[in-house]
Amino acid sequence: MRQSQLFTKARREAPADEVAKNAQLLIRAGYINKEMAGVYDYLPLGLRTLTKIIAIIREEMNALGGAEVLLTTLQDPQPWQESGRWSDEVVDVWFKTVLKSGTELGLANTHEEALTRLMTEHVSSYKDLPRYVYQFQTKFRNEIRAKSGIMRTREFIMKDLYSFSRDAEEHQAFYDKAATAYERIFDRMGIGEQTYRTFASGGSFSKYSHEFQTVCDAGEDTIYLDKEAKLAVNKEVYDDPEVYTSTGLDKASLTEAKAIEVGNIFTLGTKYAEALGLAYTDAEGKPQPVFMGSYGIGPGRVMGTIVELLSDDKGLVWPESVSPYAHHLVSVGKDEDITKTADELYEDMQTHGVEVLYDDRGLSAGQKFAESDLLGITKRIVVGRDAVATDIFEVVDRASGAVAKVPRAELLR
Amino acid sequence: MRQSQLFTKARREAPADEVAKNAQLLIRAGYINKEMAGVYDYLPLGLRTLTKIIAIIREEMNALGGAEVLLTTLQDPQPWQESGRWSDEVVDVWFKTVLKSGTELGLANTHEEALTRLMTEHVSSYKDLPRYVYQFQTKFRNEIRAKSGIMRTREFIMKDLYSFSRDAEEHQAFYDKAATAYERIFDRMGIGEQTYRTFASGGSFSKYSHEFQTVCDAGEDTIYLDKEAKLAVNKEVYDDPEVYTSTGLDKASLTEAKAIEVGNIFTLGTKYAEALGLAYTDAEGKPQPVFMGSYGIGPGRVMGTIVELLSDDKGLVWPESVSPYAHHLVSVGKDEDITKTADELYEDMQTHGVEVLYDDRGLSAGQKFAESDLLGITKRIVVGRDAVATDIFEVVDRASGAVAKVPRAELLR
Repeated sequence: MRQSQLFTKARREAPADEVAKNAQLLIRAGYINKEMAGVYDYLPLGLRTLTKIIAIIREEMNALGGAEVLLTTLQDPQPWQESGRWSDEVVDVWFKTVLKSGTELGLANTHEEALTRLMTEHVSSYKDLPRYVYQFQTKFRNEIRAKSGIMRTREFIMKDLYSFSRDAEEHQAFYDKAATAYERIFDRMGIGEQTYRTFASGGSFSKYSHEFQTVCDAGEDTIYLDKEAKLAVNKEVYDDPEVYTSTGLDKASLTEAKAIEVGNIFTLGTKYAEALGLAYTDAEGKPQPVFMGSYGIGPGRVMGTIVELLSDDKGLVWPESVSPYAHHLVSVGKDEDITKTADELYEDMQTHGVEVLYDDRGLSAGQKFAESDLLGITKRIVVGRDAVATDIFEVVDRASGAVAKVPRAELLR
Repeated sequence: MRQSQLFTKARREAPADEVAKNAQLLIRAGYINKEMAGVYDYLPLGLRTLTKIIAIIREEMNALGGAEVLLTTLQDPQPWQESGRWSDEVVDVWFKTVLKSGTELGLANTHEEALTRLMTEHVSSYKDLPRYVYQFQTKFRNEIRAKSGIMRTREFIMKDLYSFSRDAEEHQAFYDKAATAYERIFDRMGIGEQTYRTFASGGSFSKYSHEFQTVCDAGEDTIYLDKEAKLAVNKEVYDDPEVYTSTGLDKASLTEAKAIEVGNIFTLGTKYAEALGLAYTDAEGKPQPVFMGSYGIGPGRVMGTIVELLSDDKGLVWPESVSPYAHHLVSVGKDEDITKTADELYEDMQTHGVEVLYDDRGLSAGQKFAESDLLGITKRIVVGRDAVATDIFEVVDRASGAVAKVPRAELLR
């Protein structure tokens, strides 16, 4: 895309009321817009990055055998009353609204109830299991405070997958595969190294659940990690001696760190199935409740985490997998032949399907480079006098600053 | 995908309380699930069709120069108070909710206010215009009645594009291009022939707006059409003599028809720009309000319209452009060599990236064909005894019932 056609403009200052680094940078770079505390719009560059994060997660969920659906925001109270989670005293983040008829509805903060009820229409025999169902859907949470930018918002897209298994054993096999898929997702987004599979408290059906915690000073959570084992425990279970027995971790050797929870996986057991009547007939003809798990990742929170972790004092820094464009083509100088060379390279890249944002505006090199640094696109291609003469282009890696000289043909691959 | 792995099951009966044909068929075929009146989940097959509809619209919006964003559901009252549309007396479809702090918020039923306010951050000079911004975003409308299945719902994804132009003339040029793009969209989805560009009442800035109305008995609207001119007028303007002067239509020769409004385009003029302070400096240095237009299509309503219009007494019928899969591979008979041939063709098609749903279940030919008809996938490939012997496959066109004999190689293209 030609940057002269991009409607968003970078700016020097973030709004005064914005305290989170991720939102400050993303607003300055024109990736997002703040509607109010904890409520952000995604603008073209931000939506491209969010869409790439979603695409990576979708690929991994499909590889796990997940079937994608799209459930609704408006929630019928009934299944929530059956599970005991309708009351504001039990779930303290509800947004509720009212139909013209006076019936109160909820805005979904999660989807166990709705999906469990839905599955009663489609599961009856052991032959119908296991099933894995996921979605990318907007959740609403009535947070009292929302000061972490796009990492904790009142409205956000969440990938939530739910597993429906015959029993605890079949469940556990999938749970372990899902944990591995999560690690692959964070690897692919460039935050794998800093992200720890973290033991957290479980529920009636499992001793532990797992969080995926990315070590970062901006984190709201505290974890205790073993770098070697690439495992951690969270605050809830840190003082529970059993966690050390079952994991082999040594409490004394753990290091405390601030971290951001970028994902979590949870064994739900038969709680929702029993409350909502989701049962199957086993091979012996006996009715059994379905054994469930839930698996969440917030793409927006992951995006905020990448910003907190990888950006530098000049601006955003995107790994190529989630960069809004892979290349930022910047022409330097207003001579006609520079513009001509840059235009041609841009058209060539477009024709070859190579992603590129082209800064074709009549600004100074200094202004263009500063803005290019702020936007954080992975590779910057500079078109100046040299490039016109040689058809070889300077390519600057945003993260390391490393400069390479690259011939045109290689840029079209 | 193997149908044995699809979690949704087709069923004989729709829920007793469902009166709309589109929802009855889509529920029976496992495309959607009804949460409550006017609130539907999209299940895997339904989401695939919806996603294809969205992809077609996105292509056409990008071709118009549209930039995609994602605004929020939660609405700050302020810009709505400034435009005069916050009150329930003015807008009678509001859903509202409340922050913990007691502040009332709205759930977006449209996005003129939010986007106009946002654009004030990015538009200041005539050089910043024109701009075209669109999104696929969930709207909430507190409808009193919701009896038209997925054609009129309380929660639905809408494509809304907003144009920001320097003046009426620049606006009109885009408006005309957008109208043509809309016609192309409906053509590509197989309902172009029945869809009429329809004159409707305008506003302060334009004599007329345009609806795109698809002639269909299930429609809630009445239009008066000229088949030859491929134009229509709606009820609002039918008795306005000026519409005939300006369009050249002859009132006496128009035919009355029931129709579904599948899209609309509207000249907003400077109304929102003036209310919310969206102005630019013109080439002479004078401040001017931005001239706006809005352009809507509901992908779910389009999907419902396709069902109402094209389905038959055996079930759904999808044009290939929006069919959840292009092919439905159905094996007939339980002999090992039939299964082997069908398995191999399925794997071949997967390898070649040809979309296929494979009915690999151990059901009778009659059951499989009936369900295949209900699902409505464009082409059915039958693998029976003959195919095993000849490697030539019977391909049945769902819409016409026409049968072709097709060699394997052609199915892999």
